[in-house]
Amino acid sequence: MDGRMNAAILTVGDELLAGDVENTNATWLASRLADRGVVVGEIRVVPDDAALIATAVREFTDRFDATIVTGGLGSTPDDVTLEGVARAFDVSLERDDEVRSAVEATVSDIRDEYPQFEFDLEEAARYPSEGRIVPNEEGIAPGWVIANVYIVPGLPAEMKATFGAIVDEFDGERRTETVYSSEPESHLNELLETVRDRFDVTVGCYPGADRKRITLSSDDADRLEQATDWMTSRSEIDATE
Amino acid sequence: MDGRMNAAILTVGDELLAGDVENTNATWLASRLADRGVVVGEIRVVPDDAALIATAVREFTDRFDATIVTGGLGSTPDDVTLEGVARAFDVSLERDDEVRSAVEATVSDIRDEYPQFEFDLEEAARYPSEGRIVPNEEGIAPGWVIANVYIVPGLPAEMKATFGAIVDEFDGERRTETVYSSEPESHLNELLETVRDRFDVTVGCYPGADRKRITLSSDDADRLEQATDWMTSRSEIDATE
Repeated sequence: MDGRMNAAILTVGDELLAGDVENTNATWLASRLADRGVVVGEIRVVPDDAALIATAVREFTDRFDATIVTGGLGSTPDDVTLEGVARAFDVSLERDDEVRSAVEATVSDIRDEYPQFEFDLEEAARYPSEGRIVPNEEGIAPGWVIANVYIVPGLPAEMKATFGAIVDEFDGERRTETVYSSEPESHLNELLETVRDRFDVTVGCYPGADRKRITLSSDDADRLEQATDWMTSRSEIDATE
Repeated sequence: MDGRMNAAILTVGDELLAGDVENTNATWLASRLADRGVVVGEIRVVPDDAALIATAVREFTDRFDATIVTGGLGSTPDDVTLEGVARAFDVSLERDDEVRSAVEATVSDIRDEYPQFEFDLEEAARYPSEGRIVPNEEGIAPGWVIANVYIVPGLPAEMKATFGAIVDEFDGERRTETVYSSEPESHLNELLETVRDRFDVTVGCYPGADRKRITLSSDDADRLEQATDWMTSRSEIDATE
């Protein structure tokens, strides 16, 4: 990796497409990646459909340095994420001994509390025939990495715990600075175009309750610092945050 | 439309990809569409980049009956949604008289309160050379419809108001019923596969704090009713919601 790193986030689940729940997983992952200097180039939500998951994964592996897939790792029939990712790489799902051991240990812990807990261990141990396990300290189904695709569970606690085991693999140079302005948007256009063109930084301007939030982003720390200094010297920019 | 209707939601904005804000617009729109029986087949977040917006819109117009695009309708340089959609349809942005009148009226209202408000009316009136206006009662930039693509502003109050003017154009047959179970997921697999195969309905199972939420969806009201009746007669399904 040469400093720049871009990534896509693929969240799987009919419940997201029905508007039943906010896609807080995507926002959380996007924020963590941004903190690490990684540019998130796309977030996509697709149904629990192996063919559509495979299509999205194929496209993302071509376009992005890394793809994080979350959701659909459970054991009910609507959970087809592993099948979809396996299809994208033309590999099969096969019993993985390391997954089997991890799942067996978790199920054994659950049975200490609920002795009657039934579970199809062999079915749950079927993972893509290539790749490597990512431990899930918070639930049954481990995550998985195949090529540049990282699969993590969809339940937020499990997603966060599993992402924690792979977070070091995400590292880019994109940094963002934020300044504020009380001017109307229409007074800011020339300023925003000038800073963008003069310093070659990405500029965003977002309305707020009482003033605009302006973001400057770049992979180049020097340019970003120069652009930020130039902006804060302008009368349109509030002297204090 | 023959009863089935599917749609995609395209939300535009670097701030969403940086994880700065939850994509509540997508969830709100998805929920309204689901209420109206429309199947949302994909939600996508792309940057403020006209080329990427154009690519997504072209793909969606092929795959879906309707596409809702939200975000990037403001007047700062990072707002390029209209340009992206125009590119997707190979049309240009030109001054639209109806848009100009609507924007002028809104700006005039603003100037009643803030007489010094500067605004480039001619620039703001540049909309795709084909299509029709959607009034925005809550802000400056009107929405726009071109072919089967509906563009609405990104600020939630403006998005909701503008969507209200086009909501009647979304009408499908997909309905969803929800039942609950206190059984572990692993005990429900056979039941879920059976109801899916026997009644040809879409089945989802979602973990909750104390029990599973099971959704049954179909475009066919009779099949959905039969599937729901069959489910509620089963011992695995809780007698009461």
